[in-house]
Order: sequence, then structure tokens, then C-alpha cells
Amino acid sequence: MTSQENASPGAEASPGEDAEQLPAPGRNLWVSLAQSNADLTDQPRRPAKTAETVAAAIVRDIVSRNLGPGDTLPSEAAMLAHYRVSRASLREALRLLEVQELIRLKPGPGGGPIVTAVDPRNLAKMTTLYLHLGGATYQELFEAVLVMAPISAERAARNGDRSLVSAAMKPFLLEEQPLQGPAYWTVTNEFHGSVEALAGNRVIELLGRIVGNIWHEHIVTRMDTGAVREQIHAEHRDIAMAIMAKQPSKAARLMRDHFAGLVEEYRRHWPGRFDELIEWD
Amino acid sequence: MTSQENASPGAEASPGEDAEQLPAPGRNLWVSLAQSNADLTDQPRRPAKTAETVAAAIVRDIVSRNLGPGDTLPSEAAMLAHYRVSRASLREALRLLEVQELIRLKPGPGGGPIVTAVDPRNLAKMTTLYLHLGGATYQELFEAVLVMAPISAERAARNGDRSLVSAAMKPFLLEEQPLQGPAYWTVTNEFHGSVEALAGNRVIELLGRIVGNIWHEHIVTRMDTGAVREQIHAEHRDIAMAIMAKQPSKAARLMRDHFAGLVEEYRRHWPGRFDELIEWD
Repeated sequence: MTSQENASPGAEASPGEDAEQLPAPGRNLWVSLAQSNADLTDQPRRPAKTAETVAAAIVRDIVSRNLGPGDTLPSEAAMLAHYRVSRASLREALRLLEVQELIRLKPGPGGGPIVTAVDPRNLAKMTTLYLHLGGATYQELFEAVLVMAPISAERAARNGDRSLVSAAMKPFLLEEQPLQGPAYWTVTNEFHGSVEALAGNRVIELLGRIVGNIWHEHIVTRMDTGAVREQIHAEHRDIAMAIMAKQPSKAARLMRDHFAGLVEEYRRHWPGRFDELIEWD
Repeated sequence: MTSQENASPGAEASPGEDAEQLPAPGRNLWVSLAQSNADLTDQPRRPAKTAETVAAAIVRDIVSRNLGPGDTLPSEAAMLAHYRVSRASLREALRLLEVQELIRLKPGPGGGPIVTAVDPRNLAKMTTLYLHLGGATYQELFEAVLVMAPISAERAARNGDRSLVSAAMKPFLLEEQPLQGPAYWTVTNEFHGSVEALAGNRVIELLGRIVGNIWHEHIVTRMDTGAVREQIHAEHRDIAMAIMAKQPSKAARLMRDHFAGLVEEYRRHWPGRFDELIEWD
């Protein structure tokens, strides 16, 4: 591998261009939307391999049979009879699901595939790879958090199930909140998870969790938040109160201010980071 | 596999609950945000396997060396020397990247790994799996499109590089637009891709493309849009004009109306679809 050849951020911008324009730190490897979707409409897609088809059928069966984490899937013999495929195809299908951490293969006699809870963090990790290849910077991640987080807060405040809202937000109104160790992380993560769940839309929730997970893994855990933890709890409390009081605009604004403050804190600690490519490792 | 055991949509809602509440069609298999992130902060993550570490290094090298689609990676011998791993680990790393369609392994003598353009559609497909497991319905997908698409339109109108904006939007101002075949699909996809790119944030763009790809694959291609194609072009034209005229609110509103109209069109054709789980196949 030779020397790094990518231009420094902004090096390609011609003089006189507006300050709002983004730096271009590296080549974007994404195919265009038109290219991506064109073949869907006029050409057949690559036919799915048998293993992929079986994997999809297993997933549908997990969902339709309402199986949850820890539930066991049928034996290999039962699955071979049910899906009518070769042993090799079935095993490849199970392996595909295992790689995605959707099932776990319990080894040994009496073992077999069991259902696991899926962690959107795995999806966030894959998204990070695409962002890296697309040339996205941490600056863009910050902007995206400032856009996505208020959407959840606003929707949570408009949620029609007020008793659900109260129950979900109540723990964050307490004056006493943990400031250290796992309890601190659990409470602060739980707050944002609860707001996202109250948004009442699992597509928006998942997009929020993708961004939130990248934020958490790349930003929060690499920054010493000790000095601002009291303040973080206080801001969560204010947001929770606005959500409970059915004040969508205020909840959105407070959530935005909350993250804007954290971004500023981050800028003080790690100013050079903003123009760096989002890492993938 | 036994009978379908999941409750019909809304069956679990107790009487008197607000109409804004969502149906609960199946179990949500996502782990909570707190659970997902807790171990990041106080416990080490599962150590990456050698193959994963090598795969990450190869990706970083592709990006930092500014390699593009079609460029060849170094020979196996060169990579073994550079990454200092076993042949088995290197091959597993390349296989991991190949499964994600980030590289293609050209077979035969003179063959080897070549870089491919990454298609966010693959990420959208994986996201669809998570949505299916999370119990998300098409209704929620529609809502998410109505939230995400206006964000891109508003940001595009605020883009500081006005000559870029003009160049990108110009093709959609023409009165004559293709109404059939691949040309129709290319133009309509290109429009939304251009708006998302003008939003000037690759994180937001990628989230928009995830939702857009799912919308395209699950909704647009399964609906006969023949009767509304003239109108779709006219609406794209109006949005393009608002973006060029630097009218962020108007662009956002027109984009929302555009998709709201398409959702209504879809409701007329396939009313039962709204409460169905987002498919994964």
C-alpha cells in the first residue's frame, strides 16, 4: 500500500465558493440512486440463492410464530422436511443468519439454533462502513444528530398514549441520578431510547438508533463527560417535562440545544476531529 | 412450522386508547438502546477476529488511496506481506468484503480482487430485515418518508453552492419528460437522488437513501404509476423550482405534498397493505 493520496479537506473547493459548502475528503464510492434503482424496474434482480430464500423464510417464521430471544428453532431434520432443501443449503442459510447475529448456534448434543434479540448496533456498524466509503465526516454526523434527535422528541410529545408517555419519562424526572459507572450509562442511554420509542414509528426509531449508536460509539465513549453529567441529567429532565406536558416544539428545541451543547463540548476537546472521515474499524 | 400465532394489528390495544397509537403486529426483537450501548462503556467489546481487522484495514486503504470502482487491489502475495496475516485470514477478510459486495473477486489467471461501487440498496435491504424483526408496518414506512424527504428538500434549497444547485435541478425543469421504460425510472430516481445529494450531508443522505430504496422497492415498483406520471414530473418540476429559488419551506412543503399524494394513490390501490409488516425476502 502506498502513501495516502486523498486531498486534505476542502482542498478541492475553488475560491469564492460559499462557506456552507462541504469539504470533499475522499472519493464517494456510493452508486447513484438512479443507478441503484434502475434495474429494479425493468430488469429482474439477481435471483436469490436457495440459502438466501431459506434464510428469509426462517426469519418470516420466527416473526409469524412470535418467537423471542432464547426460543429454539426446530431440529435440522424438521427444517429439512419443512423447507424442502438440501442439508448444505439449510446450513448455509443458518450460517447467514448467524453472521447477522439473528440466531446463535448452540453447540454439542441437544444443541441447535436459538433465536437472539437483534441489536441495531450491528446495523449501525454496517452503516458506518457505508459512511466511511461515502466520505462522510464527523461534522456531518453531528449535523445529522441535530436533525434526527429533535424529530423523535417532537413526536414523543405528540404521542397520544399519555399514560405510556408518563410512565416512560417518569424515571428521568428524579433529582437524584447516577453520575458514575454502568448506572450512569444505562440511565442516559435509556432516556434517549425511551424518547425514540415514544416517537411511535419504528422506521424513524431505527434511523434514530443508527445515528444514536454511531454517536455513542464514536463520540460519547471517547470523550470524558464527567464534568457535564449533572447538566446532562438536568437537560434530560427538562426534555422529559416538555414531552409530558405535550409541548412538541419545546421538546424538539430542548433536544436540539442538548445535542448542540454536547457538540460544543466535543469541539473543545477534539477540534481537529470535525473534518475527519467517520472511522470504520 | 405451526400456524401463524401473531395477533392481528391493533388486537392488543385496550379500549379507550387514543387513535394516534400504533398497532402492535408482532413482537419487537430489537434489544433496547440501553442494553445495546451499556457494554460499550464499561466492558470491552468482543475482540475483533483477525479477518475482521484485516477487512477494516483493506477498506481504509481503499479509501485513503482513493481507489474507485474497477481498480484492482494488490496481489495476494503483496497483501500477505503488507498485512502480515495468514493466507487463511486474508482470504476470510476478502470473503467478508465480497459478501458485502464491496469488492469482486475476478476469477482465473490474472484475476484477483477489484473494488466495486457500493450500493446503499444493500444497506436498505439489511435495514428492511431489522424493520421486519422490529414489527414495523408500511404505515410507518410512509410516515418516515413524509418526515425524511422534506428534510432533504429544505436543506437542498439552503445549499450555498447555487451553481451546483442549478446544474443539478435543471434537467427536471424541462416540459418534456420520459413517461415510459427505463428512461422514466432513471429520471424520477435521479430527481430524488439529486435532491438528497444537494442536502449536503452524507449521513442524512444515506438515511434518506435507505428509506427511499425501501419505498422504491416495496411501494413504487409494485404500483402501476402510469396514470400519474405526468403529475409526478410536474410536481418534481415545482420542487426543483423552489429549490433553485432558495425557498426552503416551500420546497419542504411541496416535497411532503408530493409523497402524501403518492401515499393516497397507494391507499386507493392497496388499502389492506398499510397495517402489514414490512416484508423481508
